[in-house]
Amino acid sequence: MLTSSMEDYLEKIYELMKEKGYARVSDIASSLSVQPSSVTKMIQKLDEKQLVTYEKYRGIVLTPKGEQLGKLMKQRHKRLEEFLRMLGIREETIQKDVEGIEHHVSPATMSALNNLVLFFDQNSHCLQEFNDFCTELQTLKETEDERK
Amino acid sequence: MLTSSMEDYLEKIYELMKEKGYARVSDIASSLSVQPSSVTKMIQKLDEKQLVTYEKYRGIVLTPKGEQLGKLMKQRHKRLEEFLRMLGIREETIQKDVEGIEHHVSPATMSALNNLVLFFDQNSHCLQEFNDFCTELQTLKETEDERK
Ligand SMILES: [Mn+2]
Ligand SMILES: [Mn+2]
Repeated sequence: MLTSSMEDYLEKIYELMKEKGYARVSDIASSLSVQPSSVTKMIQKLDEKQLVTYEKYRGIVLTPKGEQLGKLMKQRHKRLEEFLRMLGIREETIQKDVEGIEHHVSPATMSALNNLVLFFDQNSHCLQEFNDFCTELQTLKETEDERK
Repeated sequence: MLTSSMEDYLEKIYELMKEKGYARVSDIASSLSVQPSSVTKMIQKLDEKQLVTYEKYRGIVLTPKGEQLGKLMKQRHKRLEEFLRMLGIREETIQKDVEGIEHHVSPATMSALNNLVLFFDQNSHCLQEFNDFCTELQTLKETEDERK
């Protein structure tokens, strides 16, 4: 079982490795806004779970299993972003919501949300109808608020 | 700021009060699967935040502010359930996902998900198209898996 924090680390290390080819403690610390000492402790835990190793000269490296999980975390994050973006949520709120939600979404729910994004992408008339529906609800709500 | 655990307690106390008119430590403990001593500690914290009070003979009672929040938690939980149910997620998975997700969904996202449920409810042709789309994706995936 991975904790939410472990998932965040795997996602971040995967990201850094894709960007730079390696992940340094200092880079992980600054991008997750944590102390380097916390990174070192977490790396030990992930090492025990055989998800990362430490290579001389190269630094922290994901094992194949760690890379597979990191990729999954990154993909889940990206897909949840896409879903909320489709719903018209503000970027700032998207980032905050996704950071919390991502650790609690089962593969079944993730797959259904992804299907919903694909569906609206390929059936723009339904997305249009949905957006019109939202505008209408909003107008109704505002009229009601004015009446009060 | 409320912690996830505080939100769970407020939701549960609200539920018990609606059901029975009162919330006893033992009922809260058994329905949240925690020790009575944990409930007592949490009630103290919620009391400090003026969300619950202890009334002689009646037991734990939500303050008006606590009741408002408890109702909101309960509503958010119910609406997330409805959303995942609409996506065809299994009941067991729904319960697990909602218990985690609910604490991380912003009001903006909650409102958008709720609109989506209302939309599909009132535009069943779009829901039908979505369900057909999912079946098609599933068939494609199975055909691909067979080829491997
Ligand atoms: Mn993330
Ligand atoms: Mn709940």
